[in-house]
Amino acid sequence: MPLHDAVEVIVAKRDGHPLSDSQIDWMVDAYTRGEVADEQMSALTMAILLNGMDRREIARWTAAMIASGERMDFSGLSRPTADKHSTGGVGDKITLPLAPLVAACGVAVPQLSGRGLGHTGGTLDKLESIPGWRAALSNAEMLAQLDDVGAVICAAGDGLAPADKRLYALRDVTGTVEAIPLIASSIMSKKIAEGTGALVLDVKVGTGAFMKDEASARELAETMVALGTDAGVRTVALLTDMSTPLGLTAGNALEVRESLEVLAGGGPADVVELTLALAREMLAAAGVDGVDPADRLADGSAMDAWRRMIVAQGGDVDAPLPVAREQHVVLAPADGVLARLDAMAVGLAAWRLGAGRARKEDAVQAGAGVEWHARPGDVVAAGQPLLTLHTDEPARFERALASLEGGYDVVPEGSRPALTPLVIDRIA
Amino acid sequence: MPLHDAVEVIVAKRDGHPLSDSQIDWMVDAYTRGEVADEQMSALTMAILLNGMDRREIARWTAAMIASGERMDFSGLSRPTADKHSTGGVGDKITLPLAPLVAACGVAVPQLSGRGLGHTGGTLDKLESIPGWRAALSNAEMLAQLDDVGAVICAAGDGLAPADKRLYALRDVTGTVEAIPLIASSIMSKKIAEGTGALVLDVKVGTGAFMKDEASARELAETMVALGTDAGVRTVALLTDMSTPLGLTAGNALEVRESLEVLAGGGPADVVELTLALAREMLAAAGVDGVDPADRLADGSAMDAWRRMIVAQGGDVDAPLPVAREQHVVLAPADGVLARLDAMAVGLAAWRLGAGRARKEDAVQAGAGVEWHARPGDVVAAGQPLLTLHTDEPARFERALASLEGGYDVVPEGSRPALTPLVIDRIA
Repeated sequence: MPLHDAVEVIVAKRDGHPLSDSQIDWMVDAYTRGEVADEQMSALTMAILLNGMDRREIARWTAAMIASGERMDFSGLSRPTADKHSTGGVGDKITLPLAPLVAACGVAVPQLSGRGLGHTGGTLDKLESIPGWRAALSNAEMLAQLDDVGAVICAAGDGLAPADKRLYALRDVTGTVEAIPLIASSIMSKKIAEGTGALVLDVKVGTGAFMKDEASARELAETMVALGTDAGVRTVALLTDMSTPLGLTAGNALEVRESLEVLAGGGPADVVELTLALAREMLAAAGVDGVDPADRLADGSAMDAWRRMIVAQGGDVDAPLPVAREQHVVLAPADGVLARLDAMAVGLAAWRLGAGRARKEDAVQAGAGVEWHARPGDVVAAGQPLLTLHTDEPARFERALASLEGGYDVVPEGSRPALTPLVIDRIA
Repeated sequence: MPLHDAVEVIVAKRDGHPLSDSQIDWMVDAYTRGEVADEQMSALTMAILLNGMDRREIARWTAAMIASGERMDFSGLSRPTADKHSTGGVGDKITLPLAPLVAACGVAVPQLSGRGLGHTGGTLDKLESIPGWRAALSNAEMLAQLDDVGAVICAAGDGLAPADKRLYALRDVTGTVEAIPLIASSIMSKKIAEGTGALVLDVKVGTGAFMKDEASARELAETMVALGTDAGVRTVALLTDMSTPLGLTAGNALEVRESLEVLAGGGPADVVELTLALAREMLAAAGVDGVDPADRLADGSAMDAWRRMIVAQGGDVDAPLPVAREQHVVLAPADGVLARLDAMAVGLAAWRLGAGRARKEDAVQAGAGVEWHARPGDVVAAGQPLLTLHTDEPARFERALASLEGGYDVVPEGSRPALTPLVIDRIA
């Protein structure tokens, strides 16, 4: 006789009871083995979304997902390790300059990333716009590159938390993505199994983020910090604004270009600010002090680490980046101040232009995306270019423009509204 | 482009919004066609269970399930039609004497029944203990028998509400059986599609019923009466007690035998009382008055209708009924009054003795079940037989006895507690 059965576990959570450790272990293991069916797991995830899980349940669920696969070990490296995870935002290319920057400061960065689905882009999609670059590395290749270059951004292998992989795909089609216990355990099971010593979480809040309100984002951040800390990973979270997109571009090659500007010592102020803030947290969590990452941007050592990181994965760092075949410019409607540029509107436009995918099996366009020529708070003149849309397929402009409708406001000078700070809070 | 997609419909209900008519029609149709997957429907049913549905949504959901299949039509019969549905109880053999009794009063009874799953027995399982009797009839055979005999108890064909068939099987394995909107629409879609002119619902309440408390049972009854009435079926419900099992037996052949006693003018008082109460409601709903069903039990015409009904479906009315190979007697522990006999305890014991099945594909034992020799309120003497357990496999006694532990109380005479009335209320 098995220890439990799926209906018993579903009914317990449905009726508002906490699940026992044994129920959680059995359910995750039986789901991984295929003994619990997708329709049973989806009923349970809906019950979890609506009735919640306490901290013990979330920790146990995370542990069970970790136990479903292999664990990596970086303890043999000569350097400490630190990783970063963002819950996903529009124009969020921070991983690209951040990983080589932190490596240049003496901390190894094992960054397992994903592809984008929906309106937020994926780090691997962005890097794949660099000719020759490949995302798939074996565990041995990853370890060797970490030892040699100090930074690696690659696809997570199938061996890490396979239960999470299956569950994530299920949640995507069953309306159960937005459950804090499941988001937290999904992220943290992969990061803990990956074996990083320190972890900095960038938890986004605002129209362009999963978490639209600060209370939910804070709950997610606190949950993840507790999970990481309990698992022996030094974990800290920044709550950052995602009502406005980051930088001046959203799209794959467009964001690589902007990241290169940052690594060259320039780039949009907000991207630089967040890259440095996260780098400082990663260094502190890894126990490295006395190094100012701003110096490493200024002296070119972060750019050197970038070039070695890209070359190690087959990328041609000197090849020109792809450019979309067609452009469409949106002009400022009036003189005034750009008071608002909505992250979700921009993210949807970039997605519709071909930068993102609707289904996992879709391809993305390397050159597609949105550039904006002003940020909230900037003065604009009627008729100046406000946005440039990029795509290989001009038929896509119409739906992209529709998603931008109502997505920005130009107000008379003097009436500018208060702007949200980029870093809202720090949770440790 | 399809009108809707599954995630949109799931998320709407998940977030507490009522579903539109168009969303409901699309979802049920797409599920029937296999375009919506089981894991999507199970997430939706969990959201419905936890967030509810209003009356309009339930009516539309029911209509969509009816539209997923064929509808039958009895308007060509010379007699009015009336059907009965019980939400399921222990020892609930009422359909067996009731259908021929009402037929003997001049109203045709098209009774589509099911097999048992879990602790409540199934009407078809009971009748299949009669040698030769077959449950499967074509629509033409059913109509001919209704015209000729006036009563038919048979399995529902695959053509009626196929969406409900698939959904019921799904709910059974996903912990979503206990949702009033889904229970009501499941029952009523089949009854409305079946085409009966009048319908009497026996909604059980108590430990042995799906609905443990009166408020839930009342809500279910009111929901179903409204659904039937709105669909043009004259519908009435009785709320009846299921904290005590009905009659003196639970089990397949055991309950046929007890039904024959009732048809012969005898039988346990509660079974006779409920059979007559439901018969009177069915006659009234079918517009037949001036006939007292008690007379039809007394004059043998109900028994005649029974014999013709069984013979028409291949049953040998004169063959002896199967008897289990092994018996075990439980003695009264003390002199006193039987104060309580718990329906769930008796139902589980009968199920564990082999009268019911754990999975759809299991077979049932014709002779297995429980007989009790006293009813709550009866005086018993220490050492007299209180219960007799029947099974073909003596290894089953132990677990059956375990389920009866704490399932009955014998108290000193004089301290007898108040007994629940059988018919609690009438909802029209």
